[in-house]
Amino acid sequence: MAREISLFEAIRTQRAIRRFRADPVSDEAITRVLEAAIRAPSPGNRQSWYFLVVRDPETKRRIGEYYWQATLEAQREPGYAQIASSPVYRSADDLARRIGEVPVMVLACVEVRGGAAGPPGRGPITLGAAIYPAVQNLMLAARGLGLGTCLTTRHRRFEREVKELLGIPDHVETAALIPLGYPAEGEHFGGSRRRPTTEVAFYERWGRKKASA
Amino acid sequence: MAREISLFEAIRTQRAIRRFRADPVSDEAITRVLEAAIRAPSPGNRQSWYFLVVRDPETKRRIGEYYWQATLEAQREPGYAQIASSPVYRSADDLARRIGEVPVMVLACVEVRGGAAGPPGRGPITLGAAIYPAVQNLMLAARGLGLGTCLTTRHRRFEREVKELLGIPDHVETAALIPLGYPAEGEHFGGSRRRPTTEVAFYERWGRKKASA
Repeated sequence: MAREISLFEAIRTQRAIRRFRADPVSDEAITRVLEAAIRAPSPGNRQSWYFLVVRDPETKRRIGEYYWQATLEAQREPGYAQIASSPVYRSADDLARRIGEVPVMVLACVEVRGGAAGPPGRGPITLGAAIYPAVQNLMLAARGLGLGTCLTTRHRRFEREVKELLGIPDHVETAALIPLGYPAEGEHFGGSRRRPTTEVAFYERWGRKKASA
Repeated sequence: MAREISLFEAIRTQRAIRRFRADPVSDEAITRVLEAAIRAPSPGNRQSWYFLVVRDPETKRRIGEYYWQATLEAQREPGYAQIASSPVYRSADDLARRIGEVPVMVLACVEVRGGAAGPPGRGPITLGAAIYPAVQNLMLAARGLGLGTCLTTRHRRFEREVKELLGIPDHVETAALIPLGYPAEGEHFGGSRRRPTTEVAFYERWGRKKASA
């Protein structure tokens, strides 16, 4: 194996990869990204997470159909036209057409029994604290192994259908669908555009940009 | 600076640190963890995140009071007695008493305007996809610098009051309160207890544990 990637290099160079080579991903690599996922913080150490790994072509194809239908629905909504021309959305729409063919899909799932307030599928933002840190660990570990991922949620428009297809019980929700595979030619890690911390970090009080030591 | 920690070592040894030395945390270290946070995935690259760094003793003390009140409220609820004896909760309750004295608090905030369905503070679990990957990057980067953190949300019972205290606008929510500081003597990284991946990973279909290659 190549040298171990440093933490800060992995963080700095992670970016959404949306085109993949057809090469398979080994069981060992999948296990390593899952081992990373379960090291993430877990509220009250309840570990209410599950990870569903899908490599069966027919299952991926069917999930991909829902994903594409969800994309078409989103495209018909007011407001989509404004964002659709951005590079991120064009790339995301390209992925949506081909997502059924990615080498691996990982569905990150979380139990919501007892945790969600209100009707199913709704709750405080803090519900996500039980699953997205693990998703991020999984994606960083993938980066560390040279595997591309991106964090997608569009399939949630067909949450019921996807859960039925995969046999996911009622008290569990899918929080993310993560395509996993080696980046296609022309895809590269690094270079994500971000507003600098000077614009998004405040000190002592909202809006105060100067650090007080 | 010491050698760069490897990605997989940082992931493997991250754990909740809830007792801190009084030593201050440098501006440089704070900037580094924030730089890590903003490299996380962001839906549609909207970067709807903000990070509020609090070191002012009086502000921390007042947030700490809300946090302790929230803890007392939680302790009065049915069901708390069962979990309160677990080491995680005892440690969390100990932190709750002293959280106003941690060297640094970071409030991870997220815009919810246009994103949240339904009443304020409620939405699909996927709202958290916009902030918790960044929170996890921040916490991993802290681990990489030898700084302890834990992911807390109890202050959310006093979300309105905390937002007012810090001047946080209506369309922004606080998703996490992250204490940050050097671990107290006796605190150590590593050794978090987790169910193995063989219990939480399924292949092709919910409940199927054997990997199909």
